Formats: sequence, structure tokens, C-alpha cells
Amino acid sequence: MQEPVITLLTDFGVTDSYVGAMKGVILSICPSAKLIDLSHEIKEHDIYEGAFFLSSVAKFYPKNTIHLVVIDPGVGSERNAVMIRSENYFFIGPDNGVLSLAASVDGVKKIVKISNSKYFLKPISHTFHGRDIFAPVAAHLAKIGEIEKFGPIIKEWNQIEITKARVEKTGIHGEIIHVDRFGNLITNISQEIFQNAEGIQPDFIQVRINDRDLKMILANSYNQVKVGDYLGIFGSYNFLEISRNQASAATLLNSRVHDKILLKF
Amino acid sequence: MQEPVITLLTDFGVTDSYVGAMKGVILSICPSAKLIDLSHEIKEHDIYEGAFFLSSVAKFYPKNTIHLVVIDPGVGSERNAVMIRSENYFFIGPDNGVLSLAASVDGVKKIVKISNSKYFLKPISHTFHGRDIFAPVAAHLAKIGEIEKFGPIIKEWNQIEITKARVEKTGIHGEIIHVDRFGNLITNISQEIFQNAEGIQPDFIQVRINDRDLKMILANSYNQVKVGDYLGIFGSYNFLEISRNQASAATLLNSRVHDKILLKF
Amino acid sequence: MQEPVITLLTDFGVTDSYVGAMKGVILSICPSAKLIDLSHEIKEHDIYEGAFFLSSVAKFYPKNTIHLVVIDPGVGSERNAVMIRSENYFFIGPDNGVLSLAASVDGVKKIVKISNSKYFLKPISHTFHGRDIFAPVAAHLAKIGEIEKFGPIIKEWNQIEITKARVEKTGIHGEIIHVDRFGNLITNISQEIFQNAEGIQPDFIQVRINDRDLKMILANSYNQVKVGDYLGIFGSYNFLEISRNQASAATLLNSRVHDKILLKF
Repeated sequence: MQEPVITLLTDFGVTDSYVGAMKGVILSICPSAKLIDLSHEIKEHDIYEGAFFLSSVAKFYPKNTIHLVVIDPGVGSERNAVMIRSENYFFIGPDNGVLSLAASVDGVKKIVKISNSKYFLKPISHTFHGRDIFAPVAAHLAKIGEIEKFGPIIKEWNQIEITKARVEKTGIHGEIIHVDRFGNLITNISQEIFQNAEGIQPDFIQVRINDRDLKMILANSYNQVKVGDYLGIFGSYNFLEISRNQASAATLLNSRVHDKILLKF
Repeated sequence: MQEPVITLLTDFGVTDSYVGAMKGVILSICPSAKLIDLSHEIKEHDIYEGAFFLSSVAKFYPKNTIHLVVIDPGVGSERNAVMIRSENYFFIGPDNGVLSLAASVDGVKKIVKISNSKYFLKPISHTFHGRDIFAPVAAHLAKIGEIEKFGPIIKEWNQIEITKARVEKTGIHGEIIHVDRFGNLITNISQEIFQNAEGIQPDFIQVRINDRDLKMILANSYNQVKVGDYLGIFGSYNFLEISRNQASAATLLNSRVHDKILLKF
Repeated sequence: MQEPVITLLTDFGVTDSYVGAMKGVILSICPSAKLIDLSHEIKEHDIYEGAFFLSSVAKFYPKNTIHLVVIDPGVGSERNAVMIRSENYFFIGPDNGVLSLAASVDGVKKIVKISNSKYFLKPISHTFHGRDIFAPVAAHLAKIGEIEKFGPIIKEWNQIEITKARVEKTGIHGEIIHVDRFGNLITNISQEIFQNAEGIQPDFIQVRINDRDLKMILANSYNQVKVGDYLGIFGSYNFLEISRNQASAATLLNSRVHDKILLKF
């Protein structure tokens, strides 16, 4: 029989025992679970970063993978814990929007408010529902496969969105939605909006970012420019990225998530 | 058949190949082993931190899990390598106290001095018993299940302890035993000692820490105070924690492990 | 049936979703794959560091392990992607030398230029062949086991080498080839060259490094010197290491990879 896959995405880091505790709880309930760390290095409490991360990776997993996310600044408060059945996956986490991008892209079928305490670890701590609620619930779901067992179906939930880039007279107005380890600036400018914008040159772009004006080629490979030079490239997120060959664009431009970017006509 | 679970806890970091080498050795001997990283980011040579980490997480694992710990500043010296059979688990590591908190809590049944070189990787290096002794021994134990095969039973071993908080006239005198990624200060003040101390207010505490006096509520959720405000909370370790809502108490108080804390009457 | 082992070594870090995406792709194609992280913290674009890491760890893995390496500054350019069958292992990665040390040590049998797009994930991005080419190809290889399916056999490939230490009149001239987390300086001076060099004292060495002259014992254990003192030791890489007992030699000597070291007669 296929081992159920459970991915874990948290802001717990790996210097504390929190992730290790969650894995122990899961394996105690569902010994055959295949545990995959997506990341535990999401910035503390950063729901937006977690949501973006999940949405860019969940879709590559096998059908019926359980994506378990614990980025939970509201732990212990009245916020709901939810379990989502989407077209291909299960999502489990706090109802603060962190699941919403990935689940929406995949197509939400049902959402359950997790409330059946039969599946919780007792006593439930005030501060660590990852261990006491989310982990055991994920492990039980891996065995049961039906989200209805875990609580009542709900219709209302919290969703966040990635701001859409918009075309104006001066050009395409977007923003940085992610900065990766290499210092690539991932924007919200999709290939579609780019190609449909009249007045855009297809192979040479002019960018305004953090009060700096830059010209660069639109490349298909980092190596099309010299080491250290800028280039624009449609990368693996299917968005325009501002990069430098073997160097960090982020450091030089002092750029961060939510910074504005203008692609001039 | 159930795959044997082997957890790994080291101070090796992940920029070196040490952990990868250990996993290769284990899988070469016991291909069905399920390897779980607890952490490799224990501070170098910090036996106390490793012991606390292990004791807070080992107990969540399935029965017969093998907990393999390599925090080993004395590698190559006369210090023993030990294998422990406790009520529910196996522990393997150097005899420097790093296993002692977790094994004692679970209930030690037998301790063996690892000496049967039949199970070692040869040649044995001077500096990396994690790879040459501990990893192969853990893998063989996963197959054999009997610690007596690995050497003679011993009675003497090295144990460390977490200092206990004590009640005095002025209040409860404790110390910080862990600072987590979020800057929460985990103290050694248990719910039991707190509740039995006469003169303690049940919902509002006065704390002296690093020459600062703080008043804060004793909360059940971080969200009971404003973002950035202090609160006391009995957290997932079952000890009192000094925290701030979505902010670091450690940074603001400049607190570290072993700092003293006084909970005033 | 034995689960196929696939190890992953990249410079992707774990704050981005790149590694998580690769794992999803692999599990979607080959659900039984056992995924082992060697490291994702190789310095960005550092082919030398990756090659050294791989060569020191690949050999400890079970026969037929697939070692997948993505340190790929030339992604999207004309550089080849290669698949290597060596005596005991499979290696997959860009043809920039990162595989060459480990594969050569194990004994290269055949090299294939990866070109059969039937096994790729489409559309292929410009920037992330780890996800779109290397991961699916590794997963298919785990199922098929024959590298000839993935493209034509080639004879030419890129290899890098570790500089060899050499004996001269003044002593053994070597260099630092790795600095580990503990600050140990791993040199390229092997036990063999050391023992064959006439004029070397067997238990006491004189070292010139970064314009400093140091005398230290050649030890079998860090504990043979006081905490903080220097020692030379033949470590787990089978090379001479310059270390300090429970302290960092690298910090004090300000040493880095490729720094020269002279072992004086």
C-alpha cells in the first residue's frame, strides 16, 4: 500500500524541538507516514510568506498529499483550525489565510472546522497546537481519509491574496512578492500581463525600483549577461524576476517583499 | 513489517557532510530505517542544550524508537559510548549526560557500554565516532533489538540535571532553562510549584529578571495582550514561560539560558 | 522490494520552496523513493565546495543510491546535464565538475548526456532545471535503472581536482580544502604523504599558516590538549586537520578554503 505523504511547513526553525515533537506525534499515530519538510524557516508569524511558499510547491506533490502548515501567531485565541479538501490535496492549519493561496489554486471542495477533540493530544497546551492538534489530526486523516470526521463543514474562511500587477499609461505597476536565497526579486508580473501590455519591448526592459532606474535585457539564461550584471527573466514561478548573474539583485537594490516595481513603456 | 524509527540529534550543523555520512552508514546496514532529524543545530559541544532538547521530544515517539545523539566534545578520549534500554525507547550516544534527562524520565532499564567492535565501521577515526561507532551501532540495533550484544552492562553513568526552582520568602526563585526561536523564555517553574506556592496571585505576576522588574498577566493565549506586550504563560514544556505577543522577550530582556528569575510574592 | 535511495545536495537553502518542489516532483513519479537531504546549504554557486562535500559522503551510501546534485550557476546555458553510472552509484547533475570527485573515486563506467525530454517536466523553466529536469530524471532512473534511456553516451566531461600537497625542501606544502562548523581546518595533507616525508617528526608539528607560526602536538584525541589549545589530528576525511580543543581554529587564524599551509621539517 502507498505510504501517505505529509508535508510540513512551519515557522518553528530547527533549533527548537517543536518540529521533532510534531513528527513523533504523527509517527505514533500513523507509522507509515512519509514526512517531508517543506521548510521550517518561514519568518516568524509571516503568514504571507508561508502562503506564497505553499502555493508555489504544493501542486508538485502526489495526489492526496496532506499539506500541514503551522504558522500560527493566533494560537490559543479564537481563530479556527481548519482542514480543507481540495481537488487533489488535503490542507491542515490555522484559519489565518496561510492555506488559502494553495488551496484556492487547486480548487477548494470542502472546508471543515477542526473540533473533534477525539483526535487531539491531551492535555492541549495553550501555545503549541502544532503538536497537540494539527499533528495528530493530520496523522489520523492519513489513516481515515475523510475530513468530515474532524468537525462541521464551514463556508466562511480567511483568504489572503497576492496583489495583481496592473497596466497603466506609464507601464506595468507591480511589486516584489518574494526574494529568494540568491537575491532574485520575484515580481507579480506574469508572462500573460507582460505579453498583453502594448508598448512593452520584448527583449529589453526598463525598470524603476527603489528610486533607481535600470535597463536590462530580458534573458532566457543568467549567462546571457556578464557575471554581476542585471537581467530580467521569467523564472520558475512564472513571474518576471529581476536578477543578476551569479550575484544578488536584492542586496544591491536593497529590495524587500512588497517593494513597488515599475516596468516602463 | 514496521520500519524501525531512528532519530538523530547532533551539533554537526548541515553545512558539513557529517550528518549525511551517518545516514549513509545507517542505510547501508539497515535499509528499512526511517530516519528522522530532530536537530543538527544544537550549539557546538552544548551537552545541556542537547539533553534538554531530547527530553522534551523523545517521549512523543513510537515505542522502540532509537534515539541517536552525537554531541560529543570528548570524542576520542576515554569517555564511554553507551546504549540505554528504557521503558519505551533505546538511546545511543556518548556517556556525558546528554542522554540522561530523557532516559531517566522514561525509566532506565539497562545500560550497556558499547564495546563490541564487530558492529563498528573500520577504520575507526579519531574524530568522528558518530559515523564510525554510533551510526553503525544504531543500525545494527534496529535489526537485532537486543542491547546486550553490544557490550557489557554497566551501572555507573553520567547524569545531568535541570536545576529545580525553589520557593523562598521573597517568591519563587527559578532560572531560564531554554530560549526558543520566538524569544520565549522557558523557566524551570512548573505549574505544580506555582500552584502550591502560597502568596502567588493566580492571574497577575511580578517578575524580576536581569535587574528589571516586570508586571504581566498570566495568560492562556498570546493574544490576551497587545502585540509587543509581556505575558506569562504555562507553555508546551509545562513550565512558566515569559513571552511577548508576536515579539521576542529574549531580545528585549537580553536573556539567556541559566539567567535567574524571581517570581515575587 | 527495496526502496530506492535518492540523496539531494544543492545550494538552494531551505527558506525557498525549491527543494520542496524537487521532492514533490520525485515522489509524484516514484512514490517509493527514500529521499535523503545531504545538504542544501552549500554556498551559492560553489562547485568546489559541493564536489568536496559529495566526495566525502557518497561512498557511505548503499549500492545503487542515486546522488542528485544541483549546484548550477550555468542553468539555462549550453552546459550539459549528465547522468553517471559509476561502480556503485548513480550521479545526476550539471556537467560543471560538481560530480567529478565523487564519481571518479568510485570509478566511472558510463556517462550520458541527459537529453531525452520524455522524462522532463514541462514546460521547462529557464531557471530551475533542478525541478524540471534533474528531479524527474532522477525519479525515472529510480524506476528504470538504465542510464542509456536518458540520452547518448558521452566521453568528454568536466572534472575538477583537489590540489595535491607536495613535499619540498622546507616541508610539506599544502592548503586548506575545507573548514567545518567547529572551525577545524581540513588540509590536503594525507597520512600517506605525511608518513613518507623524511624529516617530519611523528608527534609534534610546526605549522606556518596565514603568516603565523604554530607548534602543536599531533594528537589522537582533542582532549590530549587543554581546552582552547591547538592540535594537529588526522581526522575523518583522512587528512591532517588543524584544530583546537572545543574551540575554533578557523576564527583565531582567520583561515579559509584555499589558504596555504606549510608543515615545516
